[in-house]
Amino acid sequence: MSTREVHLINRPVGLPNDECFDIVEVELPTPEDGQVSVQNLFFSVDPYMRGRMRDAVSYSPPYQLGTVMHGGAVGEVTASEHDDFAVGDLVQSNLGWREAYTTSASSLVKLPANADMPSHYLGVLGMPGLTAYVGTLHIGQIREGDTFFVSGAAGAVGSVAGQIAKLKGCRVIGTAGSDDKCSWLTDALGFDVAINYRDSELVHSLSDAAPDGVDVYFDNVGYEHLEAAIALMNEGGRIAACGSISGYNEEVHRPGPSNLSLIVGKRINMRGFIVSDHSDLRSQFLSDMSTWMSEGKITTQETVVEGIENAAEAFRGLFAGTNMGKMVVKL
Amino acid sequence: MSTREVHLINRPVGLPNDECFDIVEVELPTPEDGQVSVQNLFFSVDPYMRGRMRDAVSYSPPYQLGTVMHGGAVGEVTASEHDDFAVGDLVQSNLGWREAYTTSASSLVKLPANADMPSHYLGVLGMPGLTAYVGTLHIGQIREGDTFFVSGAAGAVGSVAGQIAKLKGCRVIGTAGSDDKCSWLTDALGFDVAINYRDSELVHSLSDAAPDGVDVYFDNVGYEHLEAAIALMNEGGRIAACGSISGYNEEVHRPGPSNLSLIVGKRINMRGFIVSDHSDLRSQFLSDMSTWMSEGKITTQETVVEGIENAAEAFRGLFAGTNMGKMVVKL
Repeated sequence: MSTREVHLINRPVGLPNDECFDIVEVELPTPEDGQVSVQNLFFSVDPYMRGRMRDAVSYSPPYQLGTVMHGGAVGEVTASEHDDFAVGDLVQSNLGWREAYTTSASSLVKLPANADMPSHYLGVLGMPGLTAYVGTLHIGQIREGDTFFVSGAAGAVGSVAGQIAKLKGCRVIGTAGSDDKCSWLTDALGFDVAINYRDSELVHSLSDAAPDGVDVYFDNVGYEHLEAAIALMNEGGRIAACGSISGYNEEVHRPGPSNLSLIVGKRINMRGFIVSDHSDLRSQFLSDMSTWMSEGKITTQETVVEGIENAAEAFRGLFAGTNMGKMVVKL
Repeated sequence: MSTREVHLINRPVGLPNDECFDIVEVELPTPEDGQVSVQNLFFSVDPYMRGRMRDAVSYSPPYQLGTVMHGGAVGEVTASEHDDFAVGDLVQSNLGWREAYTTSASSLVKLPANADMPSHYLGVLGMPGLTAYVGTLHIGQIREGDTFFVSGAAGAVGSVAGQIAKLKGCRVIGTAGSDDKCSWLTDALGFDVAINYRDSELVHSLSDAAPDGVDVYFDNVGYEHLEAAIALMNEGGRIAACGSISGYNEEVHRPGPSNLSLIVGKRINMRGFIVSDHSDLRSQFLSDMSTWMSEGKITTQETVVEGIENAAEAFRGLFAGTNMGKMVVKL
């Protein structure tokens, strides 16, 4: 039996084009002792993957050319030679952009049998959700009454971060790249203000939206967004530096904010973080997030692209902003 | 009896020229009940004063035009109408660039009777020393074995910061603007490496000096120095953001470092601080610093400019780098 997977075959310059990827047909091995075969239901496309396409030292090793695009995926066990896994079990892996695979059971995490939306484990209940949880509560140290600003607010991380800040009693401001996204943020997610950064002078819009200044900024975008946040930040403000998607496809990095020196007088604490350092918080996160979802305090939306042949296009969509909430590929 | 004081009369554009200041002759009032008259021995010129010359909201209010340049000064009581102060007492004030003044006793701090170098209370035992203490120990969280990098290392703050890091067991690297200063850093102060930033490609020199990367950066300079520090920083590195003197005389801020986004993957914690927030540490600081000085672990040097008529020139010297250690004006 054969299956398909997506390999990175050329390192991108700028936005990754179709030359960078190849869809490869491979044999699906029959599981040996201790192994499990899985049919993926969904796999994840995430902005951080762009960083791994560079041949550079970073917090994750670079993708090797000619190998599969690793990343989060959820699927269903189709054959098992391990006692802990039975056919039909839902599992999560980090084995990426493939339709099916056979692997050691130790590389799998079993999902709850009653997981009615397994794709949530790639989003609100997965890495992006934990990133939002860590960044708001532990890095940003949000407090009731804070003005909380998040960029990339309609993305998988930003949309959850804003809602956590809201349920913790913050005034919540988010930026997104379309009026539809902004309406979603305010109408469905309860943001106090959403700013379409494409048709406004960001620092002015943010100033209007934050008459008492910004206490915590959750940065997914960097550059102009970071500069506007610093300009509006209150004394003792915190910046949870999560990413800077607006620069991910640039070969030469743009200069940083010209007002960075304000972090001295404003006593700003800017802290970069990577979610994988905080896996000790995962069980508390899952418990809190499940509760919040059941109480209706956290709402999610997914942008679903169908078919492995559209994975690269889905990935590019993250940078064009075609997703509302978490972008996943459905198989 | 008359005395002289320096007023700010025009807000500077760029480096403050002589048009910005006026030396004004005023009457020295006889002290009334609760007041003290003081003859200054030294007053301080500090880089932060440039910020207060701008008509902008910051952590200190702007200097008002036509009033004295406030700042640290030490002097001797010449007349007293307050029981706590006697003629001959050494006192510290924040009343700035004046030869003599009469003030309420409550605005004065008495120095120890045995203070043989009262000017030290403007430097190593004063605001710059406490800044170095707070920035290394509390903001930078230096640990034994860290590689510690400080810019502006031959200045009042940097020279003390580097020595504190050294006595705490760090490998210490500093930058300065002349070979003489660099020799002083390594030969007199015990720095492991000193880099003359004017005749080297900073990021390369720093890379050579820090083969194991930088754990803590104490930033007095900003811009290219900050960019080089970020480039060399280890995971979990800390940046104590104290100032960015290289931009203080610019009307339009230069862009920030183009590699700022690295703070995410490197999990860098960059924290701005202002010494006046940390006055709770002053008594511990004075105790520690006095001990370190008596043990010969902290060495100081002052650049002394004589005469109130040379105050503006001394101040400009901070930006040209004419000082080695603390710059003071002697009266």
